[in-house]
Amino acid sequence: MKSEIIAVGTELLLGNIVNSNAQYLSQKLADLGIDVYYHVVVGDNFRRAVETVRNALERSDLVITTGGLGPTDDDLTKEAVAEALGLELVAHEPSIKRIEDFFRRIDRPMPESNRKQGYIPAGSMVLENDNGTAPGIAVEKNGKLVILLPGPPKELVPMFHEKVLPYLSKRTESMIQSRMLRIVGIGESMVQEMLRELFESQTNPTIAPYAKEGEVHLRITAKTRSEAEGKQLIDEMSEKVQAILKENIYGYDDETLEACVIKQLLQQKLTISVAESCTGGMIASRLTEVPGASGSFMNGAITYSNASKVKLLNVKEETLVRFGAVSEETAAEMAEGIRQLSGTDIGLSVTGIAGPDGGSEEKPVGLCFIGIATGSGVRTFKHIFMGNRNKIRYNASTRALDIVRRTILQ
Amino acid sequence: MKSEIIAVGTELLLGNIVNSNAQYLSQKLADLGIDVYYHVVVGDNFRRAVETVRNALERSDLVITTGGLGPTDDDLTKEAVAEALGLELVAHEPSIKRIEDFFRRIDRPMPESNRKQGYIPAGSMVLENDNGTAPGIAVEKNGKLVILLPGPPKELVPMFHEKVLPYLSKRTESMIQSRMLRIVGIGESMVQEMLRELFESQTNPTIAPYAKEGEVHLRITAKTRSEAEGKQLIDEMSEKVQAILKENIYGYDDETLEACVIKQLLQQKLTISVAESCTGGMIASRLTEVPGASGSFMNGAITYSNASKVKLLNVKEETLVRFGAVSEETAAEMAEGIRQLSGTDIGLSVTGIAGPDGGSEEKPVGLCFIGIATGSGVRTFKHIFMGNRNKIRYNASTRALDIVRRTILQ
Repeated sequence: MKSEIIAVGTELLLGNIVNSNAQYLSQKLADLGIDVYYHVVVGDNFRRAVETVRNALERSDLVITTGGLGPTDDDLTKEAVAEALGLELVAHEPSIKRIEDFFRRIDRPMPESNRKQGYIPAGSMVLENDNGTAPGIAVEKNGKLVILLPGPPKELVPMFHEKVLPYLSKRTESMIQSRMLRIVGIGESMVQEMLRELFESQTNPTIAPYAKEGEVHLRITAKTRSEAEGKQLIDEMSEKVQAILKENIYGYDDETLEACVIKQLLQQKLTISVAESCTGGMIASRLTEVPGASGSFMNGAITYSNASKVKLLNVKEETLVRFGAVSEETAAEMAEGIRQLSGTDIGLSVTGIAGPDGGSEEKPVGLCFIGIATGSGVRTFKHIFMGNRNKIRYNASTRALDIVRRTILQ
Repeated sequence: MKSEIIAVGTELLLGNIVNSNAQYLSQKLADLGIDVYYHVVVGDNFRRAVETVRNALERSDLVITTGGLGPTDDDLTKEAVAEALGLELVAHEPSIKRIEDFFRRIDRPMPESNRKQGYIPAGSMVLENDNGTAPGIAVEKNGKLVILLPGPPKELVPMFHEKVLPYLSKRTESMIQSRMLRIVGIGESMVQEMLRELFESQTNPTIAPYAKEGEVHLRITAKTRSEAEGKQLIDEMSEKVQAILKENIYGYDDETLEACVIKQLLQQKLTISVAESCTGGMIASRLTEVPGASGSFMNGAITYSNASKVKLLNVKEETLVRFGAVSEETAAEMAEGIRQLSGTDIGLSVTGIAGPDGGSEEKPVGLCFIGIATGSGVRTFKHIFMGNRNKIRYNASTRALDIVRRTILQ
């Protein structure tokens, strides 16, 4: 099956945003064994959009459009596809009702323009949008399939995953399956070196590493005719990799490090509290992003000022004066302090210099101390992270979460 | 001048990389006042590449290609452009010599295949590559200009900047400037409705809205012959928009909402502390992402459990029992509690149900109460946010930051 991805949006042609949707969809279509022959970006212009869709229909079997499904006059993808296919736009009452319900739930009047989002090309199928007002659409005519998806990745990705993927899977024969192994604590070149023999001998399944912020992901991909055969190939390779990388692998596929930590905590019936200085709430935010976090995460303190470290966490003034707020000693007292204050099994702390200001020769920007307090005492870890403020904060939060994970594993 | 950007490379169609070159070139062409009408990505296939270039030559005055200038058989952009233009490829001795010199400098034998990089379409101009072996090429025929650039951004960006920009600048007379107005508190369709008259009468400058997560961005773009003229047109339009949208505009260009709030706090010498339940540290994390936040942000508490709300924030047990943790009353006591605990001018609180579990008919997933305590008392706000857990948390944190902003403005 030949396919083509059309993004509609002047903001892409102005370079305001990068076409990440095309990359995402290309990866997913490749997994399905569907060849992508073209990406096209066209602006919010009716005539050019219609021509682009017509051109695509001539040379491709499957055309996926992204963007241009919003309520404004600039949003014209649906109109262009209907014109190119020679179909009328008709009201789809369930969609209009969903949009009305959406505005009722958020207690705002529905602007009249939003009604147009409930119109679809005659005979098409609606893909419900759980994250916005624009429904997606799948429409077939003359052996060609056109799928219209909303532009915002937060709407497009779940819609593709939940609605389009099952729909397309039924239509393809060769099967691509993959598993992502998620690795933390070692870098990409170390992974490459440790797995050298596997990399050199790979055929089917293949393995490929991806450097992510603070992590490495390793994709195992098998191409087979059956799900069972693919699963077996992947299981075998996964075991080989695990035997080498051991506890550096923390999870699979979409499991995040924070989800892994919450899972471990819940399984072991452990509670945690967090005292953050330079990470400023990022660790707490990542942990509480996990549904069910409230079963383990009890309390967080963002003690940005010295006064709050003393008042809330019982950090000794003397410690702050003698060793400074960014020190092993302060990290240790913060961890024990938040643990005592919250009455949790584990107390985690981070204190550091996120920059861009505040660094010195002795204590450079990026220097962070992480403390972890448990029933058996307090341990601290010193790190120097590279990059800008946000990268330092993120990598410090990743390291802190990994320390919790490894502590529980022991 | 109408232009089009063609990227040649199967790795883009497989989703291995994102087309960041198209974004970069689009921004640069927009700055030059050159309209970009299409981006196209085509794989390493001669026939399809030739057709793509032919199609582009029919509809565009300027065609820029990226990628496919390497030494391997897969690199066929030059061949495809020559075929589409009806030109022979001829040896360009200075380029061949440069490539030979390159290999001599790195002390490696030159593979025979690299010689092909020194061939160019007859009559074209070479753009020397200071960062790799593939020369860029500019070729004109029948009033059409085709520019071929190497794919790696490390080669493409300096080549564009040093060789192509001066070349194109001479050919264009007009100049594009733009300003982004950042709006929060009203949705895209409301912006469109409020600005309907401006939208309908726009010519130069133009205005275009972009829906962002929890915000709307409005781009004003002017096309003029001088920088001063453009600035004046943008200033005038900006004033008109401001007169209508008023305090819903919080910032310009790259200024984030959290940066705006920190700026306001610092200007007014106000301090803030935050007590978060459902947002779990996201507000604190967003605020402390801003360099210099420590001048205003003093303390944060993530009181996830009821016990911590009582112990740390002095929320009355009776309030929790009678009205529940997610209630106007609890939000108010949390805001005042964190303000007292931290001794700050402002205390901000959020309590809500982020889901996916924990909702009821009376208190659905997405229900959030935001409290703000100042010297003049406590106010609370009720909202119901839509979407998944993370979207609810993010939109609640945006609303809370906006409440701080509007409170300071008053």
